[in-house]
Amino acid sequence: MTELSTYLDAVNRALETYLADVSDGQDIVLEAMRYSVENGGKRVRPMLTLEFCRVCGKDPSAALPFACALEMVHTYSLIHDDLPCMDNDDFRRGKPSCHKQFGESYALLAGDGLLTLAFETLTRAELPESDICRAVRTLAACAGIRGMIGGQVLDLLSEESAPDYALLEKIDRLKTGALMEAAVLLGCIAAGVTDETVLCAAQTYAQSIGLAFQIVDDILDVTGNEAELGKPIGSDEKNQKVTFVRLLGLQECQSLADKLTARAVSALTEIPGDTTFLANFAKQLAVRKK
Amino acid sequence: MTELSTYLDAVNRALETYLADVSDGQDIVLEAMRYSVENGGKRVRPMLTLEFCRVCGKDPSAALPFACALEMVHTYSLIHDDLPCMDNDDFRRGKPSCHKQFGESYALLAGDGLLTLAFETLTRAELPESDICRAVRTLAACAGIRGMIGGQVLDLLSEESAPDYALLEKIDRLKTGALMEAAVLLGCIAAGVTDETVLCAAQTYAQSIGLAFQIVDDILDVTGNEAELGKPIGSDEKNQKVTFVRLLGLQECQSLADKLTARAVSALTEIPGDTTFLANFAKQLAVRKK
Repeated sequence: MTELSTYLDAVNRALETYLADVSDGQDIVLEAMRYSVENGGKRVRPMLTLEFCRVCGKDPSAALPFACALEMVHTYSLIHDDLPCMDNDDFRRGKPSCHKQFGESYALLAGDGLLTLAFETLTRAELPESDICRAVRTLAACAGIRGMIGGQVLDLLSEESAPDYALLEKIDRLKTGALMEAAVLLGCIAAGVTDETVLCAAQTYAQSIGLAFQIVDDILDVTGNEAELGKPIGSDEKNQKVTFVRLLGLQECQSLADKLTARAVSALTEIPGDTTFLANFAKQLAVRKK
Repeated sequence: MTELSTYLDAVNRALETYLADVSDGQDIVLEAMRYSVENGGKRVRPMLTLEFCRVCGKDPSAALPFACALEMVHTYSLIHDDLPCMDNDDFRRGKPSCHKQFGESYALLAGDGLLTLAFETLTRAELPESDICRAVRTLAACAGIRGMIGGQVLDLLSEESAPDYALLEKIDRLKTGALMEAAVLLGCIAAGVTDETVLCAAQTYAQSIGLAFQIVDDILDVTGNEAELGKPIGSDEKNQKVTFVRLLGLQECQSLADKLTARAVSALTEIPGDTTFLANFAKQLAVRKK
């Protein structure tokens, strides 16, 4: 039986250790890094890493450095995404975004610092060096221009055109899905999994919940409660952003999110171990209110 | 006998391969990454990596992925450093800086992409996985908040104070020296060196030429030729920047650069193999005109 709160505690404690002061004059950027990492994230990615490690037969603590690295990469991407030259968002989860709190230059460096620290943290895992190398390669590929950054580029480009469903789906597959994929793959790698069937099933699970996650995000931007969400709703409409809701309508979107969740749950049959937690996790993401 | 031009060719060809199009819509950022990587850098760091690998007894081609990773990290740091929220530099080596050419958002992502690709590239080395892990750990440590990024933070902070020699030296040790250190260490790692005496000597060499390099930079900003340098001189004076020249005067600076070069050359006695190239390299950096 997996306890979400046990995972959360372990991840938060480990992140604190990795982000401890260096007391060397440059602590202001560590403070900015911590501020963003600690800002109430749902820790979706590290959860996935730990639980995939567990269901594949190894103690989840073995994957803790990998899990934290994922959260660092996710946080860096949010910090850079919020910058004035990108989405120019003043708030993140109800608090001033990193550059509003610390200024643009420190926010830029905090993002760079987190990305760099993520790779350093991977090497802290007490795992065979071949698995650490696989983890570095996987995280870099999923977070790079062929993955998350590629998705951000396509997203920027799409602002100048009117994306159709195929493009929107591709943007999401790269921008959100790729890092979800990295999360589950790093869990498998930490458990020493090399079986392609398991790895592919894990990727299908990740991509399905990644897309469902984004579709629900678009739905919540229309139907959500600002207080629960911690951010203003209607921002997509205001920014004239082409979203899944705009292309497909609310009802079709909910039905698609349900189908993707079912696909994610179905992929779990290929995964060894008790996948109840992962199935529930997928279902909860689809009905979340924040 | 080491031929600088052979190294340059090998590095430039390998960089081209690593930065080849993905033909997937996001090529504009690859173009921005290539633009900055190809913009006439001196390739100091990759040279050092290849030559340290050679003098420590291994064919330098073994260290080529490491060498390219160093150049990617160096280039990303320049792209982000030139951004309006940092130094706000419109030109880099006589050409428009990345954000002037491609816009701020793509420049930001190009920097992020290069940093991420650097770690992916390390894993491409055909070396024992334990050595690749050491390389990831070393590069991340030297490029992160305890290294290069830390130096950038201290540099930003120093703008609000009047740094003395000790602080200026520390900023440089982190901002420039740390990546030079990574360059020589990755060369040693590629050659399988674990002898602490050799690794320490390599670090002394790197830190000495790193500091000499910065001091010469400050000297050239006063005495240099704009056409040769490819950038306007007098910018430190204009920006009221506290430099080594301002603190010590031109003559003392030249003498310090010479002393540091001598220290670098002397450290080479601990390094196995023929270090003539490395000694000349240090001397040339000290008398460079651009």
